[in-house]
Amino acid sequence: METATLENNVEQSTTSELSFQIEKEVLLNGLRIVERATAQNGYQPVLANILFDAADKTKINLYATDFDMTISTSVEANVSSLGKITLPAKKILDIVSRLNDGIIDFVLNGTVMTIKSGKSKFDIIGISATEFPKIEYLTEEDNEIELDLKPFIIGVKEVCFAAASFESNNNLLSGVVCDINKNVLEIASTDGNRLSRAKKIISNKDDKSVKLIIPAKVLQEFMKVSFFIEEDTIKLYTKNNKIMFKSDNITMISNLMNGQYPQYNQLIPQSFPKEAKVNVKKLLSALERVSTMVDEKKKTVKFSFTENSLNLMSATPESGNSEDEIDILYSGEDILIGFNYQYLLDFIKNVDAEDVIICMNTNLSATVFKPNNEEDYIYLVMPVQIR
Amino acid sequence: METATLENNVEQSTTSELSFQIEKEVLLNGLRIVERATAQNGYQPVLANILFDAADKTKINLYATDFDMTISTSVEANVSSLGKITLPAKKILDIVSRLNDGIIDFVLNGTVMTIKSGKSKFDIIGISATEFPKIEYLTEEDNEIELDLKPFIIGVKEVCFAAASFESNNNLLSGVVCDINKNVLEIASTDGNRLSRAKKIISNKDDKSVKLIIPAKVLQEFMKVSFFIEEDTIKLYTKNNKIMFKSDNITMISNLMNGQYPQYNQLIPQSFPKEAKVNVKKLLSALERVSTMVDEKKKTVKFSFTENSLNLMSATPESGNSEDEIDILYSGEDILIGFNYQYLLDFIKNVDAEDVIICMNTNLSATVFKPNNEEDYIYLVMPVQIR
Repeated sequence: METATLENNVEQSTTSELSFQIEKEVLLNGLRIVERATAQNGYQPVLANILFDAADKTKINLYATDFDMTISTSVEANVSSLGKITLPAKKILDIVSRLNDGIIDFVLNGTVMTIKSGKSKFDIIGISATEFPKIEYLTEEDNEIELDLKPFIIGVKEVCFAAASFESNNNLLSGVVCDINKNVLEIASTDGNRLSRAKKIISNKDDKSVKLIIPAKVLQEFMKVSFFIEEDTIKLYTKNNKIMFKSDNITMISNLMNGQYPQYNQLIPQSFPKEAKVNVKKLLSALERVSTMVDEKKKTVKFSFTENSLNLMSATPESGNSEDEIDILYSGEDILIGFNYQYLLDFIKNVDAEDVIICMNTNLSATVFKPNNEEDYIYLVMPVQIR
Repeated sequence: METATLENNVEQSTTSELSFQIEKEVLLNGLRIVERATAQNGYQPVLANILFDAADKTKINLYATDFDMTISTSVEANVSSLGKITLPAKKILDIVSRLNDGIIDFVLNGTVMTIKSGKSKFDIIGISATEFPKIEYLTEEDNEIELDLKPFIIGVKEVCFAAASFESNNNLLSGVVCDINKNVLEIASTDGNRLSRAKKIISNKDDKSVKLIIPAKVLQEFMKVSFFIEEDTIKLYTKNNKIMFKSDNITMISNLMNGQYPQYNQLIPQSFPKEAKVNVKKLLSALERVSTMVDEKKKTVKFSFTENSLNLMSATPESGNSEDEIDILYSGEDILIGFNYQYLLDFIKNVDAEDVIICMNTNLSATVFKPNNEEDYIYLVMPVQIR
């Protein structure tokens, strides 16, 4: 039996290197926070693992990294023997989530972790903690800024989707600019065809200023991790092209991106001769209907603005065409303008407002969408040329 | 603009070949029933379409077929001009599901169907009805059997999952045997490693008998379609290797499979020296826990039965091993027996009982699982040889 080898290993080893007891739900929470930083691609098996490190008698620190991003947290535990080991994230999550509620026992022998809960027992083969990458922390001496968490997360949600989705971290447009100046956070991203920019008032004790380009992927993960943060603020530390987000219990480290980010504010027109007020729900359902007939290569939906009316049209030579009409508030000149419908859906699904204002110049110039209830969040889209 | 061509077409044609008005929800229901018989593989574009046929002034018949299976239904409509056309299933479902509730207008011109609802308007390019395959219906003169729908559907659910999942319709084991003899329906399937067999008492007016092998895929689709059937019974017609399921409003036609299906009842042992009574929920959660460590090539979980106790064990050389124990009712000899855990999960997730009886001979002979509350449903599994 395959089990024999493992059990023999366990018996041969007499002193345990790490042992602790932990509440199931507490551990599960911790695992769910760090697992998003694991790399499951198989190139370096230890990166698919979570490092369990009992630094003192009352808690276990959990770490995961894919080199681009590192997340750590600590969970309360009753530690009887200090030590560390890395365990496969997927297996350990599978197991812990299926255990009955209650206390789980962990006992390490060599690289085999024995897990017991009630009558359930598992021996999991880990990888030595010495193979886990050394994590370079930033310290409190490094450039520190303390931000209100909520407006920061809202800003991230409002702009992240407009970043370019390039795999490579070298492409600046796959980053998000965070420009903190006294008590204003300006956060923006653009993929060259559209731009999303939000401004948030934040408390900033020491009136510090900093401009950072953070990978959009990292901010998206931070947004998810932030649900586990109980405090109202988050501390940012920066040094040598690294950034560290730190709350009481969660630390996230990422590389920063370097380079000259486009001067995006220069792209935003200062005035718009044509402004239409459009109900978000009506626009969403009309756009979803009309886009059933969109040419998926071009993704173009035509918007025809006439007095208090917006007509949406789409067509594809093979399938046919579609149109829809919604009542709006508009008193400007008639204008016919084409948009990539996917760009508009991204915005409409992320905006938290009843109405949006669509601000136009010509049908070839940058068009700005903004929620009716907020001046400082704008979404700029370059129209598609239509015949 | 692409739209111009289509609109010109519409205007040039003066007499409409098909026009009707229909309630959105009524049409949507009908489309959802037939769409599962469409073929989206692209070899024959018309098979991805639904045939709309206005046979009289009060209803539209809808048809779809992928040659293996044909489904038709009819929906109430106000037809002003008779005619027929095929329209792409995916597009028409996309559109209709996104329209606001209410009446939808359909007007056909050539092969372009114009759809209007409120201010929404679509022109969809269809394919002429002449290209749609001719459907051969079975008639009331053909061998007819009327079955209770509910026990038939329960039987289908209890056995279908055990059929072999071969693509080819020629493999008999991808079929399900339905053996109707007076007022007993025996329904069974086997993939060679396991067998599921149910018996149901049914009303059968004329005491007819028939033995059919129906593709499991077709029965699975029929199970879904049956949610739309309001009557308590379903009529079966058979002729020339075809079967037709018929309710008031829905007709489904499929090929039957031909050949000598294995004499599966001979495989079921008549007596079992060892019987254990096991709680289904406990077995499911223990099996799910233990299977986290299963070797995914072999999928073997070992079952060790001792007095009133069942121990589950699994192991994989790379990851480690797992075990769990549940209290059961068992007073037979100790036995260690291996099963493909996936086979057991398939059964446990489909069985509607608090406890199952596990009936064993040796650890190499057919083992039978059956719900405690029903004699006539059995699931037989061949054990895996363990070292």
